[in-house]
Amino acid sequence: MGRWEPNARGRLERAALDLFTERGFEKVTVAEIAERAGLTERTFFRHFADKREVLFWGAGALQEFLVGSVDDAPGSLPPVEAVAAALAASGEAIFEERREFARRRQAIIASNAELQERELIKLASLAAALADALRRRGVADPAARLAAEAGIAVFKVAFERWTGDAGQRPLAQFVREAMAELTAVTTGR
Amino acid sequence: MGRWEPNARGRLERAALDLFTERGFEKVTVAEIAERAGLTERTFFRHFADKREVLFWGAGALQEFLVGSVDDAPGSLPPVEAVAAALAASGEAIFEERREFARRRQAIIASNAELQERELIKLASLAAALADALRRRGVADPAARLAAEAGIAVFKVAFERWTGDAGQRPLAQFVREAMAELTAVTTGR
Repeated sequence: MGRWEPNARGRLERAALDLFTERGFEKVTVAEIAERAGLTERTFFRHFADKREVLFWGAGALQEFLVGSVDDAPGSLPPVEAVAAALAASGEAIFEERREFARRRQAIIASNAELQERELIKLASLAAALADALRRRGVADPAARLAAEAGIAVFKVAFERWTGDAGQRPLAQFVREAMAELTAVTTGR
Repeated sequence: MGRWEPNARGRLERAALDLFTERGFEKVTVAEIAERAGLTERTFFRHFADKREVLFWGAGALQEFLVGSVDDAPGSLPPVEAVAAALAASGEAIFEERREFARRRQAIIASNAELQERELIKLASLAAALADALRRRGVADPAARLAAEAGIAVFKVAFERWTGDAGQRPLAQFVREAMAELTAVTTGR
């Protein structure tokens, strides 16, 4: 108890995902996650506020990355393109090395209404942060709001297709395809 | 008790909105709403499952209207246009005569996290139903999903602007403007 455990966070995350997948999110306790990871509950709570947090702790880092990317995007990029470029870049920066985690997480979330709600809230918060970033680039409302919301729509679709894809195509490619598709459905071309 | 009350639903709705606005949604009880409306709690529960339902009972009718409109839209309309036309038509069909209700409802929802979450879930469910309607028109995925999500983004922005507008411009006009804005931010024109 209390001593430093090597890679405790990663072990807890893997144990939690295994258990959520085996038994369903709602049936798993923190005690069981800790036991499966060979760690104590106390160590669990040093890393995560609760079991749901195992699936959502990365949201802050993702938001920070996306907002930073939009802030740094060339001023010439149209608003939605700036958002789409940030989303595409998040693949290399965050998701590609966690593809298996992302896939399993997606399946767990799809099977639980409470987690789906939490995911909706996370995405709404991302959209609000991206709209703020666009306003800092001088994009007025409602354009900033719409570009951010449209970007999140692109991300949702791209992310689902990426996690659902059996192959090795990168997330960035799915983002670019969904972006092109959005332009097509919007303009009817 | 038990006898038919003229316009009980409307009276309960008005009483609830008054109380939510005065005291905040979380501080109001069903007993207080019934009392303010001059009705019994039993009558309240004949009309609404709980106090939150006063703000969300119209969601089913809205979804039915939008899905029906997309089903009936001319086949030549691009996917997002079919959705936008349905959203614009919902103004005349549903919202214009309830503008004051919609305004007050929006303010109540904006001030309560639980209600915002419920609203997000409602909109996600609308997006899923609209994507299904587009698939019935022969629109493939991911186009159906993206057009529906983009349509909901347009609706969110248009609805907020409509409820925030002091004038008398119809919702349909805000929908068309937001739609044009979406095309502009998507294509950079």
